[in-house]
Order: sequence, then structure tokens, then C-alpha cells
Amino acid sequence: MTTSPHDAGAPSARTIVNRYRHLAHYDRPTIDAILDAMPVAHIAYLHEGQPIVTPTLQWREGDRVYWHGANNGRMMRATEGADVCLTVSILDGLVLARSAFNFNVNHRSVMVFGKAEAVTDREEKVRLLTRLINSFAPNQWDKLRPATAPEINATAILSLKIGEASAKVRSGPPEDNEGDYAHPVWAGVLPIRLTVGAAEPDPRNLPGVAAPDLSGYRIG
Amino acid sequence: MTTSPHDAGAPSARTIVNRYRHLAHYDRPTIDAILDAMPVAHIAYLHEGQPIVTPTLQWREGDRVYWHGANNGRMMRATEGADVCLTVSILDGLVLARSAFNFNVNHRSVMVFGKAEAVTDREEKVRLLTRLINSFAPNQWDKLRPATAPEINATAILSLKIGEASAKVRSGPPEDNEGDYAHPVWAGVLPIRLTVGAAEPDPRNLPGVAAPDLSGYRIG
Repeated sequence: MTTSPHDAGAPSARTIVNRYRHLAHYDRPTIDAILDAMPVAHIAYLHEGQPIVTPTLQWREGDRVYWHGANNGRMMRATEGADVCLTVSILDGLVLARSAFNFNVNHRSVMVFGKAEAVTDREEKVRLLTRLINSFAPNQWDKLRPATAPEINATAILSLKIGEASAKVRSGPPEDNEGDYAHPVWAGVLPIRLTVGAAEPDPRNLPGVAAPDLSGYRIG
Repeated sequence: MTTSPHDAGAPSARTIVNRYRHLAHYDRPTIDAILDAMPVAHIAYLHEGQPIVTPTLQWREGDRVYWHGANNGRMMRATEGADVCLTVSILDGLVLARSAFNFNVNHRSVMVFGKAEAVTDREEKVRLLTRLINSFAPNQWDKLRPATAPEINATAILSLKIGEASAKVRSGPPEDNEGDYAHPVWAGVLPIRLTVGAAEPDPRNLPGVAAPDLSGYRIG
């Protein structure tokens, strides 16, 4: 393993960003901001010796990132107590450079490594699920048909400590070889972003139910 | 392993969708459409016995999905010849149901399993890179500063046959327990989509360089 000044904040060897080291960040504000901006994580785990990656919702509270699922699901069974890698990535744009070699992608991403731990306390599970639901619409949990004990029991929640974690952020215009700036081709960025549309009410909504305030929901 | 009518098209045990089986698809038109709609893939692989997932650009041609990177990069070295799982996912919306248990995510996703194979023929590499670059802007490859032999050599391209693959698609309003439709709470979908903004020219562009036609670029 080689090290460089850019590795200084890396909490472990496997968190060291090897490609484009100058894009690496190991500080919690950067890591937390990316986790908080994108609810979809991709979790890699082993199942019968094979690597699998499954997309799932994640949410962060303090020093931990959480995800949930059916407690008899493949991903939940395979990840509990096991080493996983949780990655959150946000695509911010395509970077068109003056040479193919310098084409790039503007992005923000986080990788968290560790052993997934189950949340077993029932009150804590309810508290965490409440938080997830209310992250979409404030106070929505209290308006729902109350969760039943079998539903809570059938739901597993796993978490990972944000300890071994790294972030990578690339933004701005292309970085071409200095000599290539004289090459007469357009270069620049095609920005890409996630947008939230107007809420689409369920056709089976009862007459007169009040729409929740979804205006605060941000993504990306 | 249990099977159900929904497994009929699954090409192997590990491609069977176990959760929400009614959302599973194993046909190529569905799989290809999702791969073609989203250039970011998350690839799971083993590195020193640990699962890792890395986001990277993917592109499809015929029966294969391709990705590229620096040939000395961790991901490229660890995936060549190895079993990988390539997942492409698109978030289409948050589904607010009448019970927390039926909250869901509208999405389209694909998983492809198999051994990653390197593209070694140099002309084939150039042809594939040309295709990638031109997928962003038509004919852009020919306008660039020509790729050098060392650049091509430093670039690895890996691919996976789209054989062991499955897709999952969820769309539309919530599916609540029949008895819950009488519960007086708003339910519906908060749609999310990727949008492409106006191209941002590099401040260092030469005067008068013509902007490429990026209007055809679609994502999501």
C-alpha cells in the first residue's frame, strides 16, 4: 500500500481513494451531506460466496446509517452481522473534455465499510421507522393506519457505523492536459440533477383527505 | 429454493427476484431499456475477501454491458475474470401509502451476474470507447484531440454477457391492504426524475468553438 498526503484522513486501508486521490474526502460533514442528499444506497454483500449489490433506501442518524427490509429477505439475512460496503452516489453531470481520456463524471459518492448490525429493540425500531416515514412528509407517521406488532416484527432494520468511510466529489469543468487547451473543440459540462415533481394523489384517496406538505422534500 | 409462476423466466437461481416477485421481469426488452436509460452502474466485487461496490459508467451493445477504467485501478483489477454483480437502478418516486408497511419506492432496476471479461483487442477497445463518447454527443469522438496509444493502453474495458439477468419495475400508486383504503389519510406518489440542464461551456473554450448537439441526450 502506498500512501500520499491525500490519504491523511483515511480511517483504514480499504477506505483510501486510489483513483483521482485529489477528489477524496474523509471528513464527516462531507460524508454526512452526501448521505443526507440521496436516500438510495447500493449495498454490496456476499451471498453463497458471490458478491451481490442491492439498491435500498438508507437514512442517517448521527454516526450511523440505517436500512430496512423484510426480515426474511435475501439481502437482510445475508447482511446481518456480515461485512458490507454501502455506497451512495449522486450523478451531477457529464464532463466533456478535449480528449476522450479526460472525459469524466461530476458526482458525489460515499462508501461506508463495516459489519451490519441489527436493531433489535422494538421501540427503537418504531422510532427509526417513524423517522424514515417523516423524512418524506413531516408528521406523516401519526396520520397512518397504526403499525401492527406483526408488521414491526416482520421488518428488520440494519445499521452501519460511519467509521470506515470515504467520500469522493468531482465538480466543475473538465481538467484537460495543458497542451490540449489549444485543441479547437467545445468542452464543458452537461449538468444532471434529480427533480421532485408534483405529488400524484392515489385515485382511491377518500374525498377531502388533506395532502401532506411535501414541499420540503429535497433530493440530490 | 422455492419456485413460483413468477420464476418462470429466471435464467438461474441467483437471478430469481424473491421480494415482490410480481415486479420481476426476465425479458431482454425490459432489461435493455433500463440499462440504456441510466449510464451509472454499481458493480459489486470481492477485494481481499471483502465485498465492495463501486459506481461507474456502463454502456450496452447487443448482448453485453461494458464499463471502463484505469487498468491499474482497484475495481478494474479486482473484477477482470471475476464474478461480479452489476446493478443499474433508477429511482422514479416515493410511494406514500396508508400504512408504513406499504410505503414503497417506484423504481426500475436490473441485476446482471457473471464473470467480467476484458476487451483486449485494441481496435475493439477504440471502437467501444468511440461509442461511449458518441453516446453523449453525436460524432464527438472525431472532434477530440486523438487518443494516443499510451492512453488506450492505460484504459481497460470489461464486459459482462447479459445472460444471468433480472429486472424489477415498480410503478403506480400505493398498494395498500384492502381494509386500509377506508383510513382517512392522503396516499400517493412523489415523482422523482433525472433532468438534463443546459450545457455549461468550459471557461477555457477557444473563441468560436461550436457547441455539440447535446439536445438528444436522455437519462432516466
